[in-house]
Amino acid sequence: MELMPPTESVFLLGESREHPMHVGGLQLFRKPEGAGPDYLSEVYQEMLGYPDVKRLFRRRPQRPLPALGSWAWAEDSTLDLEYHVRLSALPRPGRVRELLALASRLHGSLLDRHRPLWEMHLVEGLSDDRFAIYSKVHHALADGVTAIRQLRDSLSTDPAERGRPPMWISADGQQGTKSGVGAHPITLARTAASMLGEFTRTAPAGLRVATEVLREHTATLPMQAPKSILNVGIGGARRFAAQSWPGERLRTVSKAARVSVNDVVLAMCSGALRQYLTEQAALPEDPLIAMVPISMRAPSYSARGEVGGNSIGTGLCDLATEEPDPAQRLRRIHESMRRGKQLATELTPLQFLLFSGLVIAPLSWAMIPGVPERTKPPFNLIISNVPGPRSTQYLNGARLEGIYPMSLLLDGQALNITLTSYAGSIEFGVLGCRRSLPSLQRILTHLDTALTDLEQAV
Amino acid sequence: MELMPPTESVFLLGESREHPMHVGGLQLFRKPEGAGPDYLSEVYQEMLGYPDVKRLFRRRPQRPLPALGSWAWAEDSTLDLEYHVRLSALPRPGRVRELLALASRLHGSLLDRHRPLWEMHLVEGLSDDRFAIYSKVHHALADGVTAIRQLRDSLSTDPAERGRPPMWISADGQQGTKSGVGAHPITLARTAASMLGEFTRTAPAGLRVATEVLREHTATLPMQAPKSILNVGIGGARRFAAQSWPGERLRTVSKAARVSVNDVVLAMCSGALRQYLTEQAALPEDPLIAMVPISMRAPSYSARGEVGGNSIGTGLCDLATEEPDPAQRLRRIHESMRRGKQLATELTPLQFLLFSGLVIAPLSWAMIPGVPERTKPPFNLIISNVPGPRSTQYLNGARLEGIYPMSLLLDGQALNITLTSYAGSIEFGVLGCRRSLPSLQRILTHLDTALTDLEQAV
Repeated sequence: MELMPPTESVFLLGESREHPMHVGGLQLFRKPEGAGPDYLSEVYQEMLGYPDVKRLFRRRPQRPLPALGSWAWAEDSTLDLEYHVRLSALPRPGRVRELLALASRLHGSLLDRHRPLWEMHLVEGLSDDRFAIYSKVHHALADGVTAIRQLRDSLSTDPAERGRPPMWISADGQQGTKSGVGAHPITLARTAASMLGEFTRTAPAGLRVATEVLREHTATLPMQAPKSILNVGIGGARRFAAQSWPGERLRTVSKAARVSVNDVVLAMCSGALRQYLTEQAALPEDPLIAMVPISMRAPSYSARGEVGGNSIGTGLCDLATEEPDPAQRLRRIHESMRRGKQLATELTPLQFLLFSGLVIAPLSWAMIPGVPERTKPPFNLIISNVPGPRSTQYLNGARLEGIYPMSLLLDGQALNITLTSYAGSIEFGVLGCRRSLPSLQRILTHLDTALTDLEQAV
Repeated sequence: MELMPPTESVFLLGESREHPMHVGGLQLFRKPEGAGPDYLSEVYQEMLGYPDVKRLFRRRPQRPLPALGSWAWAEDSTLDLEYHVRLSALPRPGRVRELLALASRLHGSLLDRHRPLWEMHLVEGLSDDRFAIYSKVHHALADGVTAIRQLRDSLSTDPAERGRPPMWISADGQQGTKSGVGAHPITLARTAASMLGEFTRTAPAGLRVATEVLREHTATLPMQAPKSILNVGIGGARRFAAQSWPGERLRTVSKAARVSVNDVVLAMCSGALRQYLTEQAALPEDPLIAMVPISMRAPSYSARGEVGGNSIGTGLCDLATEEPDPAQRLRRIHESMRRGKQLATELTPLQFLLFSGLVIAPLSWAMIPGVPERTKPPFNLIISNVPGPRSTQYLNGARLEGIYPMSLLLDGQALNITLTSYAGSIEFGVLGCRRSLPSLQRILTHLDTALTDLEQAV
């Protein structure tokens, strides 16, 4: 048993049936040539043949002293793999529409806390020669970066490779081979994280420290976001929409405008949100503010050890949604992100984490009934960009055609856009509260329009 | 808005992710001759064409004053029918095994409290010409009797009938046509129910009253049940097994032994549990005690009004599981049930409800962590017999082949057996906690062995 750091337990404490705290992903595969109708059943049976589950996937939460409210990690020695890994099917006619409906439904149910907090669903029944895998993992267990890395380890860049073990399989010997891990940023982040825990508990004092730190900086500050239909109390049901765009289109815009690809992504979101909210007659006069998670891992660090974990800082981005001109919007987004990044370099990692805590802290108020409806939101939505694999991946000969990330929603935060890069494409996953946001799939069309507008404007 | 009586709100207050408080059922249909591959999609689309949902199915819980902890019913004026009614499919090879796995999974997830508390899943993909419907409804909304009645209204005894509206459709004009409803047992039960609420809040005083009432009676009293592996803390995941037996076999035993068919049912359960627990090396020395819900509706009352509701009293049955002789077990069960029924007739309905409250009350202790593991259970399991339709039923020409009820589990109560009668058959639904009870499906084999043993013994 191992006590859980506050950065992990916060995702258990903050969870309710209205806002499950798991992240997920939908992967779309094309079956290899000559695959028979039982291809996926066979893949499934083969997967069940790997019962030796690695530590990360055997951890389950435990409360040694429920009265004290502290959580710990216990390890499941016997794990019911058939519970965690399941074979599902789509109803006819087996279009992507039926797949997204199933993924939305699976993403809306809570993970069982009596078991290690992950599930994987193999989905057959797509009308063409494709199949899908929906996986979910609790945010207390792993953040999106760790989850995608775990998944990637089970894939191969070689279409001829067969019999590669699934993501949960124990890879003994990898752990501990890296030296100096103790002094690494991830460790620093974890140490700082426990201070962050202290900080959020003593908010007023922490707030004073943090605002002093920020006095001379010009970044976007929390609590400046306008009220919007994205910031309402949410229900437990989800609606998910997903689409890929060629990375080349975004890179062309980025080069022409001398901004980063991530700035272009944010400008696409901004344009799409502007159009969506205008259609709903709900565009705020003030610009929407996006919370943009920033990984606190150094870019050079690619952990392959067994235990993952969370280490996320946060930035805020002015999305300039009230601005009608796409080129102007892109410029303002670029400037806002530049100031945010500057802040991250000017502050020590600990100070930056304190700032991140200041950004996140108001979300905990969302658990008080009625508060999300009555107060200004700390930000309007989270837009998260998670790096994915660069080259084409294969699962047992089946080509991976798309990866669509599915994040989590918080009360007062009815929309989340998470994207990832894969083999030259940018893959968007748009997750919304089913009750609050009508016609969510239109955002996909609007994202495309926004990209076209940017191409013409720069 | 309408305040919720305590007999209904108790199912919301007592709910957690480990023990969802909905009841469900699995119906198995055979497609009509000449049905094409899109038959079920067409049935589904046709169902969605009935958006005029009756009051019972538009009710959702609301807490007007969360701080006071009281619940009320609100009515959804706009209802997202596609959320409540869904089309699903089974993975290959599409056996009953895959169907039961899907039903278990659907039964293990919580209903969304922001919406009316029911779902219906049409399931295609059975390898033969059959399909299934899994439905779930929150126990706060309706008990099993009401749920089955609602479902029955959507079926027809005429195989040629087409276009009958689905169960949620509003049938205006039926409500209020019955006279004298105000003086009816159901109303009395509801009045008594609010007193029961008071009673469970002031347990010690109520306990004194109730034990005085019971002093001269010889029924099985609560808290006499032995500890067993059925009475442990449970997880949220479920395993479901189901099978039909010809009612004729049970009736033959019942006539030969001069006992009721329900006594034979209980004796089958007793024999099966004895064998199952012996296999697990976990048969208690003392007999298992079953809680047997008794409907408080007068048999002559068949409400067809729009608003259903709960009205259940409880009896306790000594299952005589430590007795090796099947005929002796049957005799003891018959005697125990006879005394319980006598009690129900000797007491006033209010007194009987107070006794029922006394039986149920200890279940609320189960919410205190660790208590189910350390104390004697109030009873070992619930065995519930819900009357079903007598004649063969059809849905849009598809013959109903089986109905398998899926009840709910409480903490410290890892097994539930619910059965119903249908067109001469007795249909058993065995629901267990996936984590606590291994090889649950063996209980089906043991039920059959137990019936054979009874046939030979009487």
